Amino acid sequence: MTETTRSGCPINLTLEALGDRWSLIVIRDIMFGNRRHFRDLLTHSEERIASNILADRLKKLDAWGFITRAPDPTHSQRSTLSLTEKAIQLVPVLAMMGAWGRRHTPVTRELSVRAQLLEEGGPPLWEDFMAELRHVHLGTPLPPGHESVGARLQAAYEAALVATE
Amino acid sequence: MTETTRSGCPINLTLEALGDRWSLIVIRDIMFGNRRHFRDLLTHSEERIASNILADRLKKLDAWGFITRAPDPTHSQRSTLSLTEKAIQLVPVLAMMGAWGRRHTPVTRELSVRAQLLEEGGPPLWEDFMAELRHVHLGTPLPPGHESVGARLQAAYEAALVATE
Repeated sequence: MTETTRSGCPINLTLEALGDRWSLIVIRDIMFGNRRHFRDLLTHSEERIASNILADRLKKLDAWGFITRAPDPTHSQRSTLSLTEKAIQLVPVLAMMGAWGRRHTPVTRELSVRAQLLEEGGPPLWEDFMAELRHVHLGTPLPPGHESVGARLQAAYEAALVATE
Repeated sequence: MTETTRSGCPINLTLEALGDRWSLIVIRDIMFGNRRHFRDLLTHSEERIASNILADRLKKLDAWGFITRAPDPTHSQRSTLSLTEKAIQLVPVLAMMGAWGRRHTPVTRELSVRAQLLEEGGPPLWEDFMAELRHVHLGTPLPPGHESVGARLQAAYEAALVATE
Protein backbone atom coordinates (compact mmCIF):
# COMPACT_ATOMS: atom_id res chain seq x y z
CA MET A 1 0.00 0.00 0.00
CA THR A 2 1.31 3.45 -0.91
CA GLU A 3 0.26 6.82 0.40
CA THR A 4 -1.75 7.46 -2.73
CA THR A 5 -4.11 4.50 -2.20
CA ARG A 6 -7.22 4.77 -0.07
CA SER A 7 -6.52 1.52 1.84
CA GLY A 8 -4.78 -1.84 1.51
CA CYS A 9 -8.04 -3.78 1.05
CA PRO A 10 -7.94 -5.99 -2.06
CA ILE A 11 -11.46 -5.01 -3.11
CA ASN A 12 -10.69 -1.31 -2.73
CA LEU A 13 -7.37 -1.62 -4.53
CA THR A 14 -8.98 -3.55 -7.38
CA LEU A 15 -11.49 -0.73 -7.81
CA GLU A 16 -8.64 1.79 -7.67
CA ALA A 17 -6.55 -0.19 -10.17
CA LEU A 18 -9.40 -0.33 -12.65
CA GLY A 19 -9.62 3.42 -12.39
CA ASP A 20 -13.10 3.99 -13.70
CA ARG A 21 -15.89 2.34 -15.60
CA TRP A 22 -14.40 2.94 -19.05
CA SER A 23 -11.15 1.07 -18.29
CA LEU A 24 -12.92 -2.23 -17.72
CA ILE A 25 -15.06 -1.67 -20.84
CA VAL A 26 -11.91 -1.22 -22.94
CA ILE A 27 -10.36 -4.39 -21.44
CA ARG A 28 -13.63 -6.24 -22.14
CA ASP A 29 -13.54 -5.20 -25.82
CA ILE A 30 -9.92 -6.26 -26.30
CA MET A 31 -10.59 -9.54 -24.45
CA PHE A 32 -13.94 -10.67 -25.84
CA GLY A 33 -14.05 -8.72 -29.11
CA ASN A 34 -10.37 -9.25 -29.98
CA ARG A 35 -10.13 -5.56 -30.90
CA ARG A 36 -6.42 -4.93 -31.08
CA HIS A 37 -6.30 -1.44 -32.59
CA PHE A 38 -7.48 2.01 -31.57
CA ARG A 39 -9.83 2.35 -34.54
CA ASP A 40 -11.48 -1.05 -33.92
CA LEU A 41 -12.14 -0.13 -30.31
CA LEU A 42 -13.54 3.24 -31.33
CA THR A 43 -15.78 2.27 -34.23
CA HIS A 44 -17.20 -0.94 -32.76
CA SER A 45 -17.84 0.46 -29.29
CA GLU A 46 -21.32 -0.55 -28.15
CA GLU A 47 -21.13 2.22 -25.56
CA ARG A 48 -19.86 4.79 -28.11
CA ILE A 49 -16.72 5.70 -26.23
CA ALA A 50 -15.38 9.11 -27.27
CA SER A 51 -12.05 9.24 -29.07
CA ASN A 52 -10.34 11.38 -26.41
CA ILE A 53 -11.57 9.15 -23.57
CA LEU A 54 -10.38 6.03 -25.38
CA ALA A 55 -6.93 7.56 -26.01
CA ASP A 56 -6.67 8.57 -22.35
CA ARG A 57 -7.74 5.15 -21.04
CA LEU A 58 -5.34 3.27 -23.34
CA LYS A 59 -2.51 5.45 -22.07
CA LYS A 60 -3.50 4.71 -18.45
CA LEU A 61 -4.02 0.98 -19.05
CA ASP A 62 -0.51 0.89 -20.54
CA ALA A 63 1.02 2.85 -17.64
CA TRP A 64 -0.75 0.62 -15.10
CA GLY A 65 0.42 -2.61 -16.76
CA PHE A 66 -2.88 -3.90 -18.18
CA ILE A 67 -1.92 -3.61 -21.84
CA THR A 68 1.18 -3.26 -23.98
CA ARG A 69 1.41 -1.47 -27.31
CA ALA A 70 3.67 -2.58 -30.16
CA PRO A 71 4.15 -1.07 -33.64
CA ASP A 72 2.02 -2.83 -36.22
CA PRO A 73 4.34 -4.14 -38.97
CA THR A 74 1.57 -3.84 -41.58
CA HIS A 75 0.66 -0.21 -40.85
CA SER A 76 3.08 2.50 -39.88
CA GLN A 77 1.68 4.82 -37.19
CA ARG A 78 -0.57 2.05 -35.87
CA SER A 79 -0.10 0.07 -32.65
CA THR A 80 -1.27 -3.42 -31.87
CA LEU A 81 -2.66 -3.71 -28.35
CA SER A 82 -1.99 -6.78 -26.20
CA LEU A 83 -3.37 -7.76 -22.81
CA THR A 84 -0.89 -8.52 -20.03
CA GLU A 85 -1.16 -11.46 -17.60
CA LYS A 86 -2.60 -9.04 -15.03
CA ALA A 87 -5.44 -8.13 -17.42
CA ILE A 88 -6.00 -11.75 -18.51
CA GLN A 89 -6.54 -12.70 -14.86
CA LEU A 90 -9.57 -10.40 -14.81
CA VAL A 91 -11.54 -13.10 -16.70
CA PRO A 92 -13.18 -14.49 -13.50
CA VAL A 93 -14.05 -10.96 -12.30
CA LEU A 94 -15.68 -10.14 -15.65
CA ALA A 95 -17.44 -13.53 -15.71
CA MET A 96 -18.95 -12.91 -12.26
CA MET A 97 -19.90 -9.32 -13.18
CA GLY A 98 -21.61 -10.61 -16.31
CA ALA A 99 -23.45 -13.28 -14.31
CA TRP A 100 -24.71 -10.70 -11.83
CA GLY A 101 -25.66 -8.27 -14.60
CA ARG A 102 -27.73 -10.91 -16.39
CA ARG A 103 -29.91 -11.30 -13.29
CA HIS A 104 -30.19 -7.76 -12.04
CA THR A 105 -29.89 -5.35 -14.97
CA PRO A 106 -31.86 -4.81 -18.22
CA VAL A 107 -29.48 -6.66 -20.54
CA THR A 108 -30.14 -7.30 -24.22
CA ARG A 109 -30.15 -10.90 -25.41
CA GLU A 110 -27.39 -10.58 -28.01
CA LEU A 111 -25.01 -8.89 -25.59
CA SER A 112 -25.60 -11.42 -22.80
CA VAL A 113 -25.23 -14.82 -24.50
CA ARG A 114 -21.46 -14.73 -24.04
CA ALA A 115 -21.88 -13.93 -20.34
CA GLN A 116 -24.27 -16.86 -20.03
CA LEU A 117 -21.80 -19.27 -21.65
CA LEU A 118 -18.98 -18.04 -19.43
CA GLU A 119 -21.10 -18.42 -16.30
CA GLU A 120 -22.33 -21.89 -17.24
CA GLY A 121 -18.81 -23.05 -18.15
CA GLY A 122 -17.49 -21.98 -14.75
CA PRO A 123 -13.82 -22.01 -13.68
CA PRO A 124 -12.72 -24.76 -16.16
CA LEU A 125 -13.96 -22.65 -19.11
CA TRP A 126 -12.36 -19.50 -17.65
CA GLU A 127 -9.03 -21.34 -17.43
CA ASP A 128 -9.34 -22.45 -21.06
CA PHE A 129 -10.20 -18.91 -22.13
CA MET A 130 -7.24 -17.49 -20.17
CA ALA A 131 -4.90 -20.05 -21.81
CA GLU A 132 -6.21 -18.90 -25.19
CA LEU A 133 -5.77 -15.22 -24.32
CA ARG A 134 -2.19 -15.96 -23.20
CA HIS A 135 -1.61 -17.58 -26.58
CA VAL A 136 -3.08 -14.67 -28.55
CA HIS A 137 -1.65 -11.82 -26.47
CA LEU A 138 1.51 -13.23 -24.90
CA GLY A 139 2.53 -15.86 -27.46
CA THR A 140 2.50 -18.85 -25.10
CA PRO A 141 1.67 -22.24 -26.67
CA LEU A 142 -1.88 -23.55 -26.47
CA PRO A 143 -2.50 -26.63 -24.28
CA PRO A 144 -2.84 -29.88 -26.31
CA GLY A 145 -6.36 -30.47 -27.59
CA HIS A 146 -7.45 -26.89 -26.89
CA GLU A 147 -10.78 -25.91 -28.48
CA SER A 148 -11.20 -22.20 -29.04
CA VAL A 149 -13.35 -20.56 -26.37
CA GLY A 150 -13.25 -17.22 -28.18
CA ALA A 151 -14.70 -18.83 -31.31
CA ARG A 152 -17.51 -20.45 -29.28
CA LEU A 153 -18.37 -17.17 -27.58
CA GLN A 154 -18.29 -15.34 -30.91
CA ALA A 155 -20.48 -17.96 -32.64
CA ALA A 156 -23.05 -17.73 -29.83
CA TYR A 157 -23.04 -13.93 -30.11
CA GLU A 158 -23.52 -14.03 -33.89
CA ALA A 159 -26.33 -16.59 -33.62
CA ALA A 160 -28.09 -14.32 -31.11
CA LEU A 161 -27.63 -11.34 -33.43
CA VAL A 162 -29.33 -13.19 -36.29
CA ALA A 163 -32.13 -14.35 -33.99
CA THR A 164 -32.96 -10.78 -32.91
CA GLU A 165 -32.81 -9.20 -36.38
CA MET B 1 -32.08 -1.63 -21.78
CA THR B 2 -33.31 1.94 -21.44
CA GLU B 3 -32.20 5.03 -23.30
CA THR B 4 -30.16 6.16 -20.32
CA THR B 5 -27.86 3.14 -20.35
CA ARG B 6 -24.73 2.98 -22.49
CA SER B 7 -25.48 -0.52 -23.82
CA GLY B 8 -27.28 -3.74 -22.92
CA CYS B 9 -24.06 -5.63 -22.13
CA PRO B 10 -24.17 -7.29 -18.69
CA ILE B 11 -20.64 -6.18 -17.82
CA ASN B 12 -21.35 -2.59 -18.83
CA LEU B 13 -24.68 -2.54 -17.00
CA THR B 14 -23.09 -3.98 -13.85
CA LEU B 15 -20.54 -1.18 -13.91
CA GLU B 16 -23.34 1.32 -14.49
CA ALA B 17 -25.46 -0.16 -11.69
CA LEU B 18 -22.61 0.08 -9.22
CA GLY B 19 -22.32 3.72 -10.14
CA ASP B 20 -18.86 4.46 -8.88
CA ARG B 21 -16.08 3.10 -6.75
CA TRP B 22 -17.57 4.30 -3.46
CA SER B 23 -20.83 2.39 -3.90
CA LEU B 24 -19.13 -0.98 -3.89
CA ILE B 25 -16.97 0.05 -0.92
CA VAL B 26 -20.11 0.90 1.08
CA ILE B 27 -21.71 -2.43 0.14
CA ARG B 28 -18.47 -4.20 1.15
CA ASP B 29 -18.53 -2.56 4.59
CA ILE B 30 -22.17 -3.46 5.24
CA MET B 31 -21.56 -7.01 3.97
CA PHE B 32 -18.23 -7.95 5.55
CA GLY B 33 -18.08 -5.48 8.43
CA ASN B 34 -21.76 -5.79 9.38
CA ARG B 35 -21.94 -1.99 9.66
CA ARG B 36 -25.65 -1.29 9.71
CA HIS B 37 -25.71 2.41 10.61
CA PHE B 38 -24.48 5.62 9.02
CA ARG B 39 -22.11 6.41 11.89
CA ASP B 40 -20.53 2.93 11.87
CA LEU B 41 -19.85 3.22 8.16
CA LEU B 42 -18.39 6.70 8.58
CA THR B 43 -16.16 6.19 11.61
CA HIS B 44 -14.79 2.75 10.71
CA SER B 45 -14.13 3.54 7.05
CA GLU B 46 -10.66 2.30 6.10
CA GLU B 47 -10.83 4.58 3.08
CA ARG B 48 -12.04 7.58 5.15
CA ILE B 49 -15.18 8.20 3.17
CA ALA B 50 -16.46 11.76 3.59
CA SER B 51 -19.79 12.25 5.34
CA ASN B 52 -21.46 13.93 2.35
CA ILE B 53 -20.27 11.23 -0.07
CA LEU B 54 -21.52 8.49 2.25
CA ALA B 55 -24.93 10.17 2.59
CA ASP B 56 -25.18 10.53 -1.18
CA ARG B 57 -24.18 6.92 -1.89
CA LEU B 58 -26.60 5.50 0.70
CA LYS B 59 -29.40 7.48 -0.94
CA LYS B 60 -28.44 6.13 -4.37
CA LEU B 61 -27.96 2.54 -3.14
CA ASP B 62 -31.46 2.77 -1.66
CA ALA B 63 -32.96 4.23 -4.86
CA TRP B 64 -31.24 1.57 -6.99
CA GLY B 65 -32.45 -1.31 -4.81
CA PHE B 66 -29.19 -2.39 -3.18
CA ILE B 67 -30.13 -1.47 0.38
CA THR B 68 -33.23 -0.71 2.42
CA ARG B 69 -33.42 1.61 5.40
CA ALA B 70 -35.70 1.05 8.39
CA PRO B 71 -36.16 3.14 11.55
CA ASP B 72 -34.03 1.81 14.40
CA PRO B 73 -36.37 1.00 17.35
CA THR B 74 -33.60 1.72 19.86
CA HIS B 75 -32.65 5.17 18.53
CA SER B 76 -35.03 7.71 17.10
CA GLN B 77 -33.59 9.49 14.06
CA ARG B 78 -31.39 6.52 13.23
CA SER B 79 -31.89 4.03 10.40
CA THR B 80 -30.76 0.44 10.22
CA LEU B 81 -29.40 -0.48 6.81
CA SER B 82 -30.11 -3.86 5.22
CA LEU B 83 -28.76 -5.41 2.05
CA THR B 84 -31.25 -6.60 -0.56
CA GLU B 85 -31.03 -9.91 -2.45
CA LYS B 86 -29.55 -7.98 -5.40
CA ALA B 87 -26.69 -6.73 -3.20
CA ILE B 88 -26.19 -10.12 -1.50
CA GLN B 89 -25.67 -11.69 -4.93
CA LEU B 90 -22.60 -9.48 -5.37
CA VAL B 91 -20.66 -11.86 -3.05
CA PRO B 92 -19.06 -13.79 -5.96
CA VAL B 93 -18.14 -10.54 -7.74
CA LEU B 94 -16.48 -9.19 -4.58
CA ALA B 95 -14.78 -12.54 -3.94
CA MET B 96 -13.26 -12.55 -7.44
CA MET B 97 -12.25 -8.88 -7.14
CA GLY B 98 -10.55 -9.64 -3.84
CA ALA B 99 -8.76 -12.64 -5.36
CA TRP B 100 -7.46 -10.53 -8.25
CA GLY B 101 -6.48 -7.69 -5.92
CA ARG B 102 -4.45 -10.03 -3.70
CA ARG B 103 -2.28 -10.97 -6.69
CA HIS B 104 -1.95 -7.69 -8.53
CA THR B 105 -2.22 -4.82 -6.05
CA PRO B 106 -0.23 -3.76 -2.94
CA VAL B 107 -2.64 -5.16 -0.34
CA THR B 108 -1.98 -5.17 3.39
CA ARG B 109 -2.02 -8.52 5.17
CA GLU B 110 -4.76 -7.72 7.69
CA LEU B 111 -7.12 -6.44 5.01
CA SER B 112 -6.58 -9.40 2.70
CA VAL B 113 -6.99 -12.45 4.94
CA ARG B 114 -10.76 -12.38 4.48
CA ALA B 115 -10.35 -12.22 0.69
CA GLN B 116 -8.00 -15.20 0.90
CA LEU B 117 -10.50 -17.27 2.90
CA LEU B 118 -13.31 -16.38 0.48
CA GLU B 119 -11.21 -17.32 -2.52
CA GLU B 120 -10.04 -20.60 -1.02
CA GLY B 121 -13.57 -21.54 0.07
CA GLY B 122 -14.87 -21.04 -3.47
CA PRO B 123 -18.54 -21.17 -4.52
CA PRO B 124 -19.68 -23.45 -1.61
CA LEU B 125 -18.40 -20.90 0.94
CA TRP B 126 -19.96 -18.02 -1.02
CA GLU B 127 -23.31 -19.81 -0.95
CA ASP B 128 -23.01 -20.30 2.84
CA PHE B 129 -22.11 -16.63 3.28
CA MET B 130 -25.04 -15.52 1.11
CA ALA B 131 -27.41 -17.72 3.15
CA GLU B 132 -26.08 -16.04 6.28
CA LEU B 133 -26.46 -12.54 4.81
CA ARG B 134 -30.05 -13.42 3.83
CA HIS B 135 -30.67 -14.43 7.43
CA VAL B 136 -29.14 -11.25 8.88
CA HIS B 137 -30.53 -8.77 6.34
CA LEU B 138 -33.72 -10.36 5.03
CA GLY B 139 -34.77 -12.53 8.00
CA THR B 140 -34.78 -15.87 6.17
CA PRO B 141 -34.02 -18.95 8.30
CA LEU B 142 -30.50 -20.33 8.34
CA PRO B 143 -29.92 -23.73 6.71
CA PRO B 144 -29.61 -26.62 9.24
CA GLY B 145 -26.08 -27.03 10.61
CA HIS B 146 -24.95 -23.63 9.33
CA GLU B 147 -21.61 -22.45 10.74
CA SER B 148 -21.14 -18.71 10.66
CA VAL B 149 -18.98 -17.57 7.76
CA GLY B 150 -19.01 -13.97 8.97
CA ALA B 151 -17.57 -15.06 12.33
CA ARG B 152 -14.79 -17.05 10.61
CA LEU B 153 -13.89 -14.12 8.37
CA GLN B 154 -13.93 -11.74 11.34
CA ALA B 155 -11.77 -14.08 13.49
CA ALA B 156 -9.20 -14.38 10.68
CA TYR B 157 -9.15 -10.59 10.32
CA GLU B 158 -8.67 -10.06 14.07
CA ALA B 159 -5.89 -12.67 14.23
CA ALA B 160 -4.10 -10.90 11.37
CA LEU B 161 -4.52 -7.55 13.14
CA VAL B 162 -2.85 -8.91 16.28
CA ALA B 163 -0.05 -10.48 14.20
CA THR B 164 0.82 -7.15 12.55
CA GLU B 165 0.70 -5.01 15.69
